[in-house]
Amino acid sequence: MTYTFEPIAVVESPYKEKFGIPRQPGLVEAALGYIKLLPPYDIPDCLDGLQTSSHIWLQFVFHQSLDTQWRPKVRPPRLGGNKSMGVFATRSPVRPNPIGLSVVKFEGIDLSNGVRIAISGMDLLDGTPILDIKPYVPYVDSIVTASNEFAAQEPRLLPVLLSAAVESQCEVYSQSSAIDLKALLVQVLQQDPRPAYQRAKIDPKRDYGMKLLDFDVKWRYAEQQSDSGAHSLYIEVFALIEL
Amino acid sequence: MTYTFEPIAVVESPYKEKFGIPRQPGLVEAALGYIKLLPPYDIPDCLDGLQTSSHIWLQFVFHQSLDTQWRPKVRPPRLGGNKSMGVFATRSPVRPNPIGLSVVKFEGIDLSNGVRIAISGMDLLDGTPILDIKPYVPYVDSIVTASNEFAAQEPRLLPVLLSAAVESQCEVYSQSSAIDLKALLVQVLQQDPRPAYQRAKIDPKRDYGMKLLDFDVKWRYAEQQSDSGAHSLYIEVFALIEL
Repeated sequence: MTYTFEPIAVVESPYKEKFGIPRQPGLVEAALGYIKLLPPYDIPDCLDGLQTSSHIWLQFVFHQSLDTQWRPKVRPPRLGGNKSMGVFATRSPVRPNPIGLSVVKFEGIDLSNGVRIAISGMDLLDGTPILDIKPYVPYVDSIVTASNEFAAQEPRLLPVLLSAAVESQCEVYSQSSAIDLKALLVQVLQQDPRPAYQRAKIDPKRDYGMKLLDFDVKWRYAEQQSDSGAHSLYIEVFALIEL
Repeated sequence: MTYTFEPIAVVESPYKEKFGIPRQPGLVEAALGYIKLLPPYDIPDCLDGLQTSSHIWLQFVFHQSLDTQWRPKVRPPRLGGNKSMGVFATRSPVRPNPIGLSVVKFEGIDLSNGVRIAISGMDLLDGTPILDIKPYVPYVDSIVTASNEFAAQEPRLLPVLLSAAVESQCEVYSQSSAIDLKALLVQVLQQDPRPAYQRAKIDPKRDYGMKLLDFDVKWRYAEQQSDSGAHSLYIEVFALIEL
């Protein structure tokens, strides 16, 4: 027995590649985007009343994991990549049915270019196929007594500094686009996109990059010394290259 | 473009028919059941570490709604059935892709009969196909600031009385099965399973019934008068017929 589903919508996201996407929704509020309904589902009636929800659930396909064979055990990045857990005890995109689940903030309905839901706080790749949209129902979905030992709190954030050139590029971009590019850069990079196995040692000469909006963002890792002599890691964004 | 998925598990639930199932999970804590992994996914390794989660998400197929054609607008029972909303603004089982989402309490892993996850608080029909199981991650999934105007709080509960015969049947059953049948009956029926259009008027002669565990449960609605003269509705369970 199998079930076949057709996407009802597609994601329009600032995240143009997997690397650098926050590992959970809600961590990057400045990530604004849209869910664009696809025909024959692109009827404003389908969304009538969604304005009464502050947040919505998205059930989507991990479309860039479709060709990866699932395994019973995975190594979640949160655990440093050196401890394995059962696939159903994780949110790994590589799973028997690669269906994702993500809650995002509802920002409004936009009819200027098809039928779209404006959202923020997303953790989804541009072009992600959406299978279903549901309202977040707080008294059911928000379980304040719930616990999860392995993901008890938000990951630690790193300070993010922008070079003077990047700062002014952000200003120019935000004036013409109404997107707060600086906030987006800081919120994305402070999550520290490096894979766990690269975190043991800092290579100050290594350049990192990710595609975000219309830019290739370039950054490095460096250490600063505080008055007390302690070293602390930070990120410096040194280039924004237009694609 | 379509996506085809195979169930990874199936639900073992006390709810043997759609009528009477609570409209959301968590409302009936006494609803105990199992998620039984199907081959080739029935490997204990797949669940390793799930014990660290107090709750789990189930993504499932509304398999009894597969033959019903979706419509852009639906009439949610919560709104009395006389107000319509867009399908994506509701949790209706009749939707373009009939994929459900439900959070349940994790009660343990049971290897006595295949590989099963013991759960409670479920709102799922027996035999429901499960597409995915994920841990509930409180800091991501529990949004304490979220709001939903149309489903702001739990539905009002009705008092449930059991006849003396039903009381003693419950006692006998609970002694042999370790299932608290009385609690289950009360928690299920206090949700008031009647469709909204039948709620306007009470018919004290009308018998209602639902299949629960191995029983056909029979009940009626009645009114009692308080000392102050106010009438209030209650439910009386008058028969438990073994199936």
